[in-house]
Amino acid sequence: MIYFTSDYTEGAHERILNKLAETNMVQSAGYGEDEYCAQAREMIKDVCKAPEADVHFLVGGTQTNTTVISAALRTHQGVISAECGHISVHETGAIEAAGHKVLTAPSRDGKITADQVLRMYQEHVEDDSFEHTVQPKMVYISNSTEFGLIYHKQELEALHQVCRQCGLYLYMDGARMGYALAAEDNDLSLWDIARYCDVFYIGGTKCGALFGEAVVITNPELKQDFRYVIKQKGGMLAKGRLLGIQFMELFRDELYWDLSRRADKLAMELKEGFLAKGFKLYVDSTTNQQFPVIPNNILDKIQEKYACTYSGAYDSQSSIVRFCTSWATREDAVEQFLNDLKKWD
Amino acid sequence: MIYFTSDYTEGAHERILNKLAETNMVQSAGYGEDEYCAQAREMIKDVCKAPEADVHFLVGGTQTNTTVISAALRTHQGVISAECGHISVHETGAIEAAGHKVLTAPSRDGKITADQVLRMYQEHVEDDSFEHTVQPKMVYISNSTEFGLIYHKQELEALHQVCRQCGLYLYMDGARMGYALAAEDNDLSLWDIARYCDVFYIGGTKCGALFGEAVVITNPELKQDFRYVIKQKGGMLAKGRLLGIQFMELFRDELYWDLSRRADKLAMELKEGFLAKGFKLYVDSTTNQQFPVIPNNILDKIQEKYACTYSGAYDSQSSIVRFCTSWATREDAVEQFLNDLKKWD
Amino acid sequence: MIYFTSDYTEGAHERILNKLAETNMVQSAGYGEDEYCAQAREMIKDVCKAPEADVHFLVGGTQTNTTVISAALRTHQGVISAECGHISVHETGAIEAAGHKVLTAPSRDGKITADQVLRMYQEHVEDDSFEHTVQPKMVYISNSTEFGLIYHKQELEALHQVCRQCGLYLYMDGARMGYALAAEDNDLSLWDIARYCDVFYIGGTKCGALFGEAVVITNPELKQDFRYVIKQKGGMLAKGRLLGIQFMELFRDELYWDLSRRADKLAMELKEGFLAKGFKLYVDSTTNQQFPVIPNNILDKIQEKYACTYSGAYDSQSSIVRFCTSWATREDAVEQFLNDLKKWD
Amino acid sequence: MIYFTSDYTEGAHERILNKLAETNMVQSAGYGEDEYCAQAREMIKDVCKAPEADVHFLVGGTQTNTTVISAALRTHQGVISAECGHISVHETGAIEAAGHKVLTAPSRDGKITADQVLRMYQEHVEDDSFEHTVQPKMVYISNSTEFGLIYHKQELEALHQVCRQCGLYLYMDGARMGYALAAEDNDLSLWDIARYCDVFYIGGTKCGALFGEAVVITNPELKQDFRYVIKQKGGMLAKGRLLGIQFMELFRDELYWDLSRRADKLAMELKEGFLAKGFKLYVDSTTNQQFPVIPNNILDKIQEKYACTYSGAYDSQSSIVRFCTSWATREDAVEQFLNDLKKWD
Repeated sequence: MIYFTSDYTEGAHERILNKLAETNMVQSAGYGEDEYCAQAREMIKDVCKAPEADVHFLVGGTQTNTTVISAALRTHQGVISAECGHISVHETGAIEAAGHKVLTAPSRDGKITADQVLRMYQEHVEDDSFEHTVQPKMVYISNSTEFGLIYHKQELEALHQVCRQCGLYLYMDGARMGYALAAEDNDLSLWDIARYCDVFYIGGTKCGALFGEAVVITNPELKQDFRYVIKQKGGMLAKGRLLGIQFMELFRDELYWDLSRRADKLAMELKEGFLAKGFKLYVDSTTNQQFPVIPNNILDKIQEKYACTYSGAYDSQSSIVRFCTSWATREDAVEQFLNDLKKWD
Repeated sequence: MIYFTSDYTEGAHERILNKLAETNMVQSAGYGEDEYCAQAREMIKDVCKAPEADVHFLVGGTQTNTTVISAALRTHQGVISAECGHISVHETGAIEAAGHKVLTAPSRDGKITADQVLRMYQEHVEDDSFEHTVQPKMVYISNSTEFGLIYHKQELEALHQVCRQCGLYLYMDGARMGYALAAEDNDLSLWDIARYCDVFYIGGTKCGALFGEAVVITNPELKQDFRYVIKQKGGMLAKGRLLGIQFMELFRDELYWDLSRRADKLAMELKEGFLAKGFKLYVDSTTNQQFPVIPNNILDKIQEKYACTYSGAYDSQSSIVRFCTSWATREDAVEQFLNDLKKWD
Repeated sequence: MIYFTSDYTEGAHERILNKLAETNMVQSAGYGEDEYCAQAREMIKDVCKAPEADVHFLVGGTQTNTTVISAALRTHQGVISAECGHISVHETGAIEAAGHKVLTAPSRDGKITADQVLRMYQEHVEDDSFEHTVQPKMVYISNSTEFGLIYHKQELEALHQVCRQCGLYLYMDGARMGYALAAEDNDLSLWDIARYCDVFYIGGTKCGALFGEAVVITNPELKQDFRYVIKQKGGMLAKGRLLGIQFMELFRDELYWDLSRRADKLAMELKEGFLAKGFKLYVDSTTNQQFPVIPNNILDKIQEKYACTYSGAYDSQSSIVRFCTSWATREDAVEQFLNDLKKWD
Repeated sequence: MIYFTSDYTEGAHERILNKLAETNMVQSAGYGEDEYCAQAREMIKDVCKAPEADVHFLVGGTQTNTTVISAALRTHQGVISAECGHISVHETGAIEAAGHKVLTAPSRDGKITADQVLRMYQEHVEDDSFEHTVQPKMVYISNSTEFGLIYHKQELEALHQVCRQCGLYLYMDGARMGYALAAEDNDLSLWDIARYCDVFYIGGTKCGALFGEAVVITNPELKQDFRYVIKQKGGMLAKGRLLGIQFMELFRDELYWDLSRRADKLAMELKEGFLAKGFKLYVDSTTNQQFPVIPNNILDKIQEKYACTYSGAYDSQSSIVRFCTSWATREDAVEQFLNDLKKWD
């Protein structure tokens, strides 16, 4: 069985494993106060051209989202997200368990627009009974989104503007930041993101690391006492160096970008194969997640040899299915799948 | 200026004030452990034909909803509600601040159906990644709803059935229970409600009392330690007797029902007036809240003499407006308004 | 049976009941946005000589404490309190349920000192692993304390200084503010309190009202969005006017002070009676709560005619008992008790 | 500089690194639903002789404590802990942020007794105003404790009995379980612990793994929906296999016990060295953490070559200091330190 189910089915890029082995017996301080983390922080600030930013390393995405949002909001404040945003539907209510409402905007592909944000903000604060509703204070976007779509510069700039205008923080979940920025149609850099967002994270778990997410805080209001909140929410790894070491490797010699580009390229091959086969695409993703609409009889055949993720019924005859590539996807696996696919009706 | 803005613009029915004065210097235990509360509890159990029920008195609605939901749910569980349900949009995120997600179902009039509940339940627990989503454990309905609609027996029974089937608690917010049960087309009794719901409350604040809501718990699973949660959530009134005294008066000689019927009758007069005038109704409410669609030029005239609540734009020319009657609405106020209305174009 | 168990065994002073009756059918806006609340706010700002303060009315003490603390603290911050402080031991973990640790300082009588605060602050923030401990951000004191003691000017000023020095908010729970300020040895005014505290409340429930606590916020940092938090924590009374009306009466013609002085005077009579009888006092309270140490055989006799509150064993032969007077305590009840007490051995 | 500061200053035992490398490109399901986790679960159930237990793998200690406690308690319930317990003082209020009070018992060495638990339970539930205090529902103990002490069989059995009697869950934090069970004076087995505790965890982070804690739930009441809570609290590692692989290695060929025994043995050498030098011990630990009382002038010399952790002043002349050994401590490092120590006055 070959897995296209997700971008976290393997371990880590071998350079990371090697570095972990190489540094294994070096003694260091705990909790991210070691030299490796210090170096990795500098490398990330460099690549973001954000020398004043604070950089923190956490283990996983849900933890990171909870920590960032909980650190930023007061008790009566909420966070705007796409309806299908990860914090809204796939974190078992972690944000609510930390006390905050997720205010959702309709979205088919996981993206939200500046207009939607403005309208939601106005509805909440301009009503006569505004104190009876949650006060929006942050906007959560993911890049790429849960459906593989990316934000373009103009869109992000517009979101930035509306957030400034309304006093909202803009937060980008970059669990798949690598795959987003490596997409052919991408026009954003980490530099842009650092300018437009108040806080964002660069995902390691899905882009070559064993685990790890690097939070970058550019808005000084959000910096204070952030490490307290990391600790409280369970995200302060005792052997924090493991995170520093991994991000050092990812950002040395452009490894992060090489791995991401390769995965996106393989995803484009899958996409062409689906289109060549006459399948529709649920959304037009240019990143490592593809959502073809597949006739159920063909899907049955696929699933005998290949694992993919069922996303929902499209109609009575066909299903929306997710195929992921990753830094670890083998080229021959994609080739073999596409050859098989051609044969099946 | 005459207020039709809400059903809490005055104090309390005079019988309640008299009783408070009469008992004022009697010494009693605090926190609801007095004789008045004990008597009121018995009266409510009688009228619900629920001798095994637990009855608790709280001060207000948001507090009551937070207490009931927080007492019932574990940390990973959520409550299903209509999108426009009070807990979803008008309690400043109180449920989320207590750690729980409100899972919303689309609804124009505030009602939700057994089918909607079943579908939402299935979507949440039958998915492969079910542990990544909140687990639905309670259904919240309001009767009458935020738009004045009532549940009929068949609907409530169906909700009860689906809740049993899915292991969900059914909770009815009865802030306007009086006005619901006094509606001409109502076929529910408190007895039915006690059978079909696991927990519900009978609202005093909007139906003749200064304040106060009586929670009735019929499901034994929900009874344990409920008073702890009342205290924690700030709802345990030091002079709890004030609640007992008020509910004793409300349920003596059918006062609660007389007041509710009268308010509904006056609301029907308003409704007829709106229809006679050619106004549409946003929803067809048979209770004390009416939502006519009023041309903006006429609305301007109305608002010079009468206060009502703007609910939203209907189209570019007209608005949805809420008119409330209550136990305290004067008949001559309604009459005068209807006379004025006839004159305005 | 005559009750000395607490200061909330009766209803309210008759002037309050009369005013509630007199205003009963006046229509007003809800949620504290009415004229009565506006007037009461002005009266309280006047008496505090704090024209820039924000004043909010809530229903009860636990609710008020939760609201103030939750509005002031970020998720990783805690509040310093005496070990026996109300928020620490008598609110069913309301502060923790709102997400914040209560950091406790040892105290026999409910008071804490500036030195204790400084030491606790230093222990928490000067440790190498400071981010692994809760960050103290607020100091909670009660005046009078749970054991009837009061703060003197010098003590409060010292607390104020240390709070300024350490960046802590100083919050005074004034559930029994009246009885504190009316004590013979008191040298504090509301004016002092408004200068020295960042936020405090003036208790109505225990000092003549049916219920109600008036929060006074003098520190601008704590003002923003406070009404949101009131609503979220269940403290925004629909008929908010009931609070405004009560506080208007309490602060008209010095009623609040007259009632408090009278209660303290009766408590001093009890105290003299206890001392004359040879009883020790657990603490030397000058306010309406007295804590005599009573031999158990005499306590048995007392409890046949008088209700008081058992506070704990003093030794194998005697108990610490609480006697409360209040605005409602009858002089003949005290006289009768003291006569009886003289007779019992 | 040689570090004796903590037991997490290095990476992981080489067998673990090797296994991670060996399995790196195998594809597997995420979130702990892979084959490695399945095998590790079986191995742990075997070693605990608890075939009916549920075993879950989490990343770190604070996360594990929050998850276990949050899964077990209702909103009004609290957890009893030693004053110096990790959840009480070193997790930045994580338990409170999850809504629960930590009820603390005085303890010099981190241990609490069955008598203390019984007394605390009674004080909380037998008081007249019991509903105004948090309800104790769980007892948290750590083995070894934060001061290196271990529980003996009789003590644990007594705690088990009192918990059964009072309806409390008994939870053991085993961050340093290996070092506890490997102590010379230990008479507990994992089998005993599985019988006496309702839930406990076996720590990997401090005993040879890169990270990871294995939660073992033996009480069926605590099993339901546990994975939901893991996900919500941010502890569900995407590449869950990393945890399974590590615990497989730790429990293959007794590696976990060999590593722990070795560390304890080196700690005993340190202890003998301190005693030979005439130092007092703050507590008499038989495990990998030692707390000598060291004259400040000697401490200064030590700290030029060796890193250890300052725990507090003992008196004006000397300090309490923590020395840790671990699976990774080199024998020659200990030898060199002891030789140096002999020379210093």
